[in-house]
Amino acid sequence: MLSCVGIILLLCSLINISVTTLVEPSIWPEPMSITYKNESAVKPISSQVVWKTMGGDIDTLNDLYQRYSKIMFIHPTPDKDSNNENNNNDLTKTIVVEVKDRSEDYPKLETSEYYELKIEENSSEIYLTADNIYGVIRGVETLAQITVYDFDELVYRTPLVSIQDKPRYLHRGMLLDTARHFQPITYLRKTIDALSFAKYNVLHWHVVDTQSFPFQSQTSPKLWEGAYTKNERYSTQDMISLVEYGRKRGVKVMIEFDVPGHQASWCTGYPQICPSTSCLQPLNPASEDTMPLLQGLLKECTQIMTDGQKHELFPYELIHLGGDEVDYTCWNKSPEINEWQKQQGYEGNGNEDTYKYFVDGVSKMAIDLNRLPVQWVEVFEHFGSNLRKDTIVHVWKEKSTLDGVVKAGYKALLSNQNDWYLDHETTSWETMYNNEPTSELTDPSTASLILGGESCMWAENVDISVLENTVWPRAAAVAERLWTPMDKMNVERAADRIETFRCLLATRGVGAAPVKNHYARKAPREPGSCYDQRRL
Amino acid sequence: MLSCVGIILLLCSLINISVTTLVEPSIWPEPMSITYKNESAVKPISSQVVWKTMGGDIDTLNDLYQRYSKIMFIHPTPDKDSNNENNNNDLTKTIVVEVKDRSEDYPKLETSEYYELKIEENSSEIYLTADNIYGVIRGVETLAQITVYDFDELVYRTPLVSIQDKPRYLHRGMLLDTARHFQPITYLRKTIDALSFAKYNVLHWHVVDTQSFPFQSQTSPKLWEGAYTKNERYSTQDMISLVEYGRKRGVKVMIEFDVPGHQASWCTGYPQICPSTSCLQPLNPASEDTMPLLQGLLKECTQIMTDGQKHELFPYELIHLGGDEVDYTCWNKSPEINEWQKQQGYEGNGNEDTYKYFVDGVSKMAIDLNRLPVQWVEVFEHFGSNLRKDTIVHVWKEKSTLDGVVKAGYKALLSNQNDWYLDHETTSWETMYNNEPTSELTDPSTASLILGGESCMWAENVDISVLENTVWPRAAAVAERLWTPMDKMNVERAADRIETFRCLLATRGVGAAPVKNHYARKAPREPGSCYDQRRL
Repeated sequence: MLSCVGIILLLCSLINISVTTLVEPSIWPEPMSITYKNESAVKPISSQVVWKTMGGDIDTLNDLYQRYSKIMFIHPTPDKDSNNENNNNDLTKTIVVEVKDRSEDYPKLETSEYYELKIEENSSEIYLTADNIYGVIRGVETLAQITVYDFDELVYRTPLVSIQDKPRYLHRGMLLDTARHFQPITYLRKTIDALSFAKYNVLHWHVVDTQSFPFQSQTSPKLWEGAYTKNERYSTQDMISLVEYGRKRGVKVMIEFDVPGHQASWCTGYPQICPSTSCLQPLNPASEDTMPLLQGLLKECTQIMTDGQKHELFPYELIHLGGDEVDYTCWNKSPEINEWQKQQGYEGNGNEDTYKYFVDGVSKMAIDLNRLPVQWVEVFEHFGSNLRKDTIVHVWKEKSTLDGVVKAGYKALLSNQNDWYLDHETTSWETMYNNEPTSELTDPSTASLILGGESCMWAENVDISVLENTVWPRAAAVAERLWTPMDKMNVERAADRIETFRCLLATRGVGAAPVKNHYARKAPREPGSCYDQRRL
Repeated sequence: MLSCVGIILLLCSLINISVTTLVEPSIWPEPMSITYKNESAVKPISSQVVWKTMGGDIDTLNDLYQRYSKIMFIHPTPDKDSNNENNNNDLTKTIVVEVKDRSEDYPKLETSEYYELKIEENSSEIYLTADNIYGVIRGVETLAQITVYDFDELVYRTPLVSIQDKPRYLHRGMLLDTARHFQPITYLRKTIDALSFAKYNVLHWHVVDTQSFPFQSQTSPKLWEGAYTKNERYSTQDMISLVEYGRKRGVKVMIEFDVPGHQASWCTGYPQICPSTSCLQPLNPASEDTMPLLQGLLKECTQIMTDGQKHELFPYELIHLGGDEVDYTCWNKSPEINEWQKQQGYEGNGNEDTYKYFVDGVSKMAIDLNRLPVQWVEVFEHFGSNLRKDTIVHVWKEKSTLDGVVKAGYKALLSNQNDWYLDHETTSWETMYNNEPTSELTDPSTASLILGGESCMWAENVDISVLENTVWPRAAAVAERLWTPMDKMNVERAADRIETFRCLLATRGVGAAPVKNHYARKAPREPGSCYDQRRL
């Protein structure tokens, strides 16, 4: 009797399946493994679907469910549907979520993002299994992408699939520069939202630079006098709330203080740490205040006291210390610094030694604070194997540079400017997509030293008015390169999918540019569909 | 004893006032009347401020308070402040709202938006009084604009002011074209948000046109087969929820069906209402289906049955019926239409008579459905005083055209393309600001026939990627022209204020372009502050 019912249900659902087809089930980035029952098999899902965490509620997940119930079901469904729902055996009514590790601790570099998603025909439940809450965040995004509104029947549908998925690289970031133009906290939140849609897991916050210092320091409270204006600043509370906002979306914040070469704005509050009032950077090594100020800044980023509780302001174990583009001119001009170099015994190569004094100094501070120092590739170019072994080298020059870095045994991040700099407006999404990190390695065994990479949004010419259409959809191409297994990457097959992803971003309020643009943020030249815009 | 305490409190508050100054109290659009105690007098306001509606809760206002508590207090304040709050007598802890008319009915053309705002030094309450809830919406926006976060003290402050305010014009709209490019419902909501920030009160929804028909019709369900794709459509439920979204923000939705000349996309679903399969517009008057289809469409816009209740889909009493750019070519080519014209007795001027048949036909339908028909100025150019007297003429050509329209006794809306078309990328905010509707009237007594005006965002070259930076901040210039008394308008004095408003939009997530741009949506050329960007 039971098996007879089973057969009838199966037949019913097959009949139902044969009637309706899904509009392009499309996932970005492409999962590691996906099996469709058949490509046209779909089932309806209630817009009132109930999310259920096995073993009891978890706050981060409750927040996630609430958010995605809005993201997935953007179109109100007519009330009549809810009346019909009870009579519909095919309808998905529950999403069952199972996590092995229920911890809500801040994610680490090595934190798993593995998830499995099962949508079967004879069940009113969808099953999402993950190693931890951060895997659930990825799985829910995938589910949201395959949950498509059928405008003809005014109902949401999902395909019948089985997905196993995890990222190829541990660190998948986007750099955002908030010093050349201030990006309000709202836009940082919006950026984190969009990053999580593309399964990025790091916002690399290039928060201060030569032009401005918007960061509130508790230890050196005059630093943010180097902000553009009083209003264009981030309070400690802003940052605490932003980091938590990111955690809830599986996006870690990696903070950067770019020293010693990019810090002119620091001189407004603390002129003594700069070579002179007319020659502002690199940092002045001869000042007694310089190293303690750096020490204080790094310390407050890794632990801070507010309301009697100990917070880590930026809990991610990677901290970026810059180290690029150090110009010795101001050091050469300063008798005080020349004298200091002599006292240190820096003969002949005084400037190189001074540069290394800073590079080593701040990376040791980071290590002592239980952080892994990340520095731009110049530190490797200058000091090679004399760098601390626990330094992570961030390659922004030619990709070929990466080979030497990993051969010397250093871990690395890739952001080669020719392919992954978003401010290069003529770099197409295809170029970004095809930038395989391992392609120029001479020893394949070194590939495991590549922790991941980042697209970079330097903001000399980018404020809020053009942020989203400069970043998206091209940053999505980088996201897929960093997430998807190499053998599944194919730029031709990705073309339609990235266009669909761009239109998905649009429905979620992210102002992504037309995919086929030659110049990143060009407006469309003529009327047309989001899904089929002509190359400009 | 009491008066002694009063004096002490007064002294305390004076001391407090003298210490702190507000960062540029700046309101856009400029209110009718504003009196500062003195320009630097400010008081702190609790980010946990309680909103209190006299006479009991009103749903729309509760929703408003909840929304604005987030908009006003975007920066989390440290917990320590809340501990200190009880000891601070100057602190604003309550916003008291009083409305004369408590109705939540949909606003009408004539609905008052008057409000008064009082912030006094010896009170922990702010007083907002309005004629109705729609005035409250305007007053709360003003309050939000003058509530400034003081980054040095990590506290919010307001100036001590008395404001009386109401708009100069009844109808202050922005046209958005969703036919040349589909703008997802998310962006319509975002647009409504931004419109309400600038105290606009109408979204003129140019929903369908030659290129696409994204609108779900209940009476002619095949019409939206003329959408670009299955996904790029608005369901009835989408529209119902959008209209309610607008109502809650004091933004009415005026729908437009542009007939008979801009309707090629209608032919996909109903080829019989078009002249032929190769010559698609204007509408075919000879088809028996044409007028009933229009009748059905207008009827469902003004009343629709869902879930057993009678809704008005678009309750605003103005409905736009287009009427512009009617090209007779397809009519001339059609023997069927020529024959029909003969049968009607249209001799000599057959095409003009056919044009008028449509113009009169749809405007009569609107009137019969209790709506005021709005039509583009061509209908006046063609038919002058033979137009129905209750027609509202929408002038998009030279502003001088307006004079003839109002002299003939017609009510009018102004959107002269040279000054108020947002797709004209080289039209500066100053030009938009200086476009005084009455400047070319030859008889001042006709000025009262101008109901207002609209900025127009035609979307041939505008999709979501460039929508916000094409519209803003220039649309704000139009908003002030339509809101602020003429004698308070001054483009030089407005320059700083509009820059501040643009930065305010940025903090609220609206991607407004740099104010001084020569081309509307140009990216900034160099690093710099939001408040001081150079002219490009």
